[in-house]
Amino acid sequence: MASLDSKESPANNPGLHFPPDEATKGYIMQQTMFRIKDPKRTLEFYSRVLGMKLLNKVDVPYMKMTLYMMGYEDVSSAPSDPVEKTIWTFGRPATMELTHFWGTENDPEFKGYHDGNSEPIGFGHIGITVDDMYKACERFESLGVEFVKKPSDGNNDMAYVVDSNVYSHTLIPLLSETCRGTNSSKILIEAHFILVVFMFSSSLICITNKVKIKNFVREISTFKFTKFYLNYI
Amino acid sequence: MASLDSKESPANNPGLHFPPDEATKGYIMQQTMFRIKDPKRTLEFYSRVLGMKLLNKVDVPYMKMTLYMMGYEDVSSAPSDPVEKTIWTFGRPATMELTHFWGTENDPEFKGYHDGNSEPIGFGHIGITVDDMYKACERFESLGVEFVKKPSDGNNDMAYVVDSNVYSHTLIPLLSETCRGTNSSKILIEAHFILVVFMFSSSLICITNKVKIKNFVREISTFKFTKFYLNYI
Repeated sequence: MASLDSKESPANNPGLHFPPDEATKGYIMQQTMFRIKDPKRTLEFYSRVLGMKLLNKVDVPYMKMTLYMMGYEDVSSAPSDPVEKTIWTFGRPATMELTHFWGTENDPEFKGYHDGNSEPIGFGHIGITVDDMYKACERFESLGVEFVKKPSDGNNDMAYVVDSNVYSHTLIPLLSETCRGTNSSKILIEAHFILVVFMFSSSLICITNKVKIKNFVREISTFKFTKFYLNYI
Repeated sequence: MASLDSKESPANNPGLHFPPDEATKGYIMQQTMFRIKDPKRTLEFYSRVLGMKLLNKVDVPYMKMTLYMMGYEDVSSAPSDPVEKTIWTFGRPATMELTHFWGTENDPEFKGYHDGNSEPIGFGHIGITVDDMYKACERFESLGVEFVKKPSDGNNDMAYVVDSNVYSHTLIPLLSETCRGTNSSKILIEAHFILVVFMFSSSLICITNKVKIKNFVREISTFKFTKFYLNYI
């Protein structure tokens, strides 16, 4: 366990309260909501490319909109009763609430949503951890996802892909090749790669990846490590 | 298990791919990133009010910024080694990556970030499920969280609170009092409440709540149910 005099301690972080109040122990991070332009293309990207499942589809006729609740939950555990399934859905952690206002997909005047990463700045991205960024890139390529830059191109490990919504995405390893290529003998079983998805018709999505790296050097300083990680920002 | 001819089936959702590709089975929804103006107030709100823990603090001097990785994970399982802890952090699902560019908290010219819910529209909110919205409201009040509207005020169950960052938040039960007050004899053990947090110095956050409701009526139609739920949008 990390000691309380670490950089994450309340003493080093004004405003931080730890341990959390007992009253909050049942809280879960349940959803991230953003608006989408085209449900067909969005579903294709999130389900086919990213492997998410449609946990619940909520039509709201009086607002002319549909919510697509998506995530990595085991849908075989979802109740078939609609009310119970809705309750089940909103009790699952880490879901996406993709909000579609009807007609935007066919409206030539509608150019899409603001991603929060140009003025006015705000929201950044969502992040998804995958097993292996390079394998993921190969698969995306086989699915016809358009790459703007592959990890092997240029002078860094970043990759850029574009999904069918003409979103642009960035895949960036957490650790640079130079780190993995050092002479250190210590090895980590796995490390994380970052796939940043400059998304779609609503916002910027960042996707965090996890990958097996057999030659990852443990002696790398925290500063260098975080610096590499943060290259993607 | 929900049958495949349900409203969440691929047949009823063009673009939807199910079951997911085996290649994606290790993917997790890892993070939601948005920018924050004031880390002290943000940490106070997310840790003290919402009960999140600071999983990892990542300083990036060359970009003059710090990332606060927060979530509901068990931090006692976090490795103490900084590199391993970073790897652990980015392997945890459902975290927040709160990004602070140094100095914004003291800059009188900096008014905060765009929340995506006014023009130009894009990002919506994040959602957190809690056990009991009314108890949560009582607790927020005891913590000095400012209410714009309490659940008992007005003609709906919505509540609005403002946190110390002068964010405004909305708490809305999933089911209206009128639903719970019907004469049906069927009872559900629990149902979900929605706490919508019109957030803060970056974006709009929506928070989903779970609450024990002993008199929740099961006969409510799906339409009414989803309509009540969606009142908060």
